Amino acid sequence: MPDTFNPQELASAASQAMWKRDNATHALGMELVSIAPGRAVMQMKVRSDMVNGHNICHGGLIFTLADSAFAYACNSYNLNTVASGCSIDFLAPARDGDLLEATALERSAAGRTGVYDVEVKVLGANTVALFRGKSYRIKGEVIEGFESHQ
Amino acid sequence: MPDTFNPQELASAASQAMWKRDNATHALGMELVSIAPGRAVMQMKVRSDMVNGHNICHGGLIFTLADSAFAYACNSYNLNTVASGCSIDFLAPARDGDLLEATALERSAAGRTGVYDVEVKVLGANTVALFRGKSYRIKGEVIEGFESHQ
Amino acid sequence: MPDTFNPQELASAASQAMWKRDNATHALGMELVSIAPGRAVMQMKVRSDMVNGHNICHGGLIFTLADSAFAYACNSYNLNTVASGCSIDFLAPARDGDLLEATALERSAAGRTGVYDVEVKVLGANTVALFRGKSYRIKGEVIEGFESHQ
Amino acid sequence: MPDTFNPQELASAASQAMWKRDNATHALGMELVSIAPGRAVMQMKVRSDMVNGHNICHGGLIFTLADSAFAYACNSYNLNTVASGCSIDFLAPARDGDLLEATALERSAAGRTGVYDVEVKVLGANTVALFRGKSYRIKGEVIEGFESHQ
Repeated sequence: MPDTFNPQELASAASQAMWKRDNATHALGMELVSIAPGRAVMQMKVRSDMVNGHNICHGGLIFTLADSAFAYACNSYNLNTVASGCSIDFLAPARDGDLLEATALERSAAGRTGVYDVEVKVLGANTVALFRGKSYRIKGEVIEGFESHQ
Repeated sequence: MPDTFNPQELASAASQAMWKRDNATHALGMELVSIAPGRAVMQMKVRSDMVNGHNICHGGLIFTLADSAFAYACNSYNLNTVASGCSIDFLAPARDGDLLEATALERSAAGRTGVYDVEVKVLGANTVALFRGKSYRIKGEVIEGFESHQ
Repeated sequence: MPDTFNPQELASAASQAMWKRDNATHALGMELVSIAPGRAVMQMKVRSDMVNGHNICHGGLIFTLADSAFAYACNSYNLNTVASGCSIDFLAPARDGDLLEATALERSAAGRTGVYDVEVKVLGANTVALFRGKSYRIKGEVIEGFESHQ
Repeated sequence: MPDTFNPQELASAASQAMWKRDNATHALGMELVSIAPGRAVMQMKVRSDMVNGHNICHGGLIFTLADSAFAYACNSYNLNTVASGCSIDFLAPARDGDLLEATALERSAAGRTGVYDVEVKVLGANTVALFRGKSYRIKGEVIEGFESHQ
């Protein structure tokens, strides 16, 4: 195993390390489709146990998909980073059986804070939600002891 | 069964009707602790399948608890209402085994839109998150055919 | 004067009509740099009467610039549209004498509501703020009686 | 002049020091009605140069009033504090001649960050906007060299 990584390798390695211990993301059936420095794409299929009292996907679970994509994007530099605040606008409902895809992109990064935009779509169809997350870097690394050569 | 309800009875009846078909809230082990016109209190215990890659409760699931409390509060008038947008500020982490309680209160209601504030606490301890939701009333009633006498 | 406009002509005409009665935007010295359907660019120079107690541009006035760009973008279809809610993240301070430019782009539009993103930069330099606005279409037209041919 | 202040005296002294150099707040005709640790009330009369193209008070200036009340509230401990992000929901329009009052209250404070809620009303009448601001403490004091005895 190499002791140095380029940024893409580091993003991949960090995401694999996070993935192993990320029970919530597994329990919701999410898949990490792609990862790169400051970017991540995740998918989640709306299951019948994700539907709310209006018979549409619970908005909280659409948020959770977006928040997961955001988390993988903002931890892609292997520096432990958490969400300090997020906002979401719901544009259209998602239904049982829909395959949702969330694409997270870094909009700014300076010092310990960053801003990420996430778009959630029904795959190949309409946009369901627009999410914006603010990240805050805390102590520690996702995988300790590996250096990035940028 | 009476064919007219006072506002508190209507809130209770609407919440019971929503609850029966609210798979997502059940799957996450939430409990509706209290309901009143424009108000709701819900609890959720953080389970080991709710923990993320930083070993704390996934922020999306804290949001989902707040969003559920918001949904019961804003549907308490028996008029179908959905979230148009929400924001959340995360103040402290929640851990495996913590019992979280979300209290939703109406801050404004005019025409089809409303604003609700939700505070999420570790029960009897610190605040974990502050959530604000904007509601939008759509067509239809939660339980059709029952009138409110206000 | 033609009685029909293409979308770009309609956007220009609507913005000119708004501009004439827009006292606030004039008082703050803003300039509308460009307008197109769903898009607007505005500039504002930070004046000494725009500085706050920390000796940097008052965040409210950075917001006001972004909000103006958003207003021109979302009224560019000549349908009266107002802001229902907005959020802003401040990334860096702006100083006395800085020329700020706000670029507003439509991210979604469906029914009566839309979402617009606005980026505020020191012209030719760093990003100062990221703004997201939610629009709501009300009754009436910006200039009454002109039709759009799309 | 005393070299120690209790928290209320410190809040008053810090607000007076900010006020002297706060050109933007003066230029918009704001008045600081009251100040206390974590709280502030400000007023602003809507002038004819604050009206926008829809003939109502520019939403940016309603935001600016709320943001100023937030700024005085979060600097009331005499520790330099800035806004990192804010959101606002507009509930009703304000008109030329309306006297607006913004009341800012601390909702949480931990480490360097805080959350403040601001309600903007037409004085004695309806609520115009709900604002939430996130504060971030930077280096330095509002008035240097004075200690607080808490």
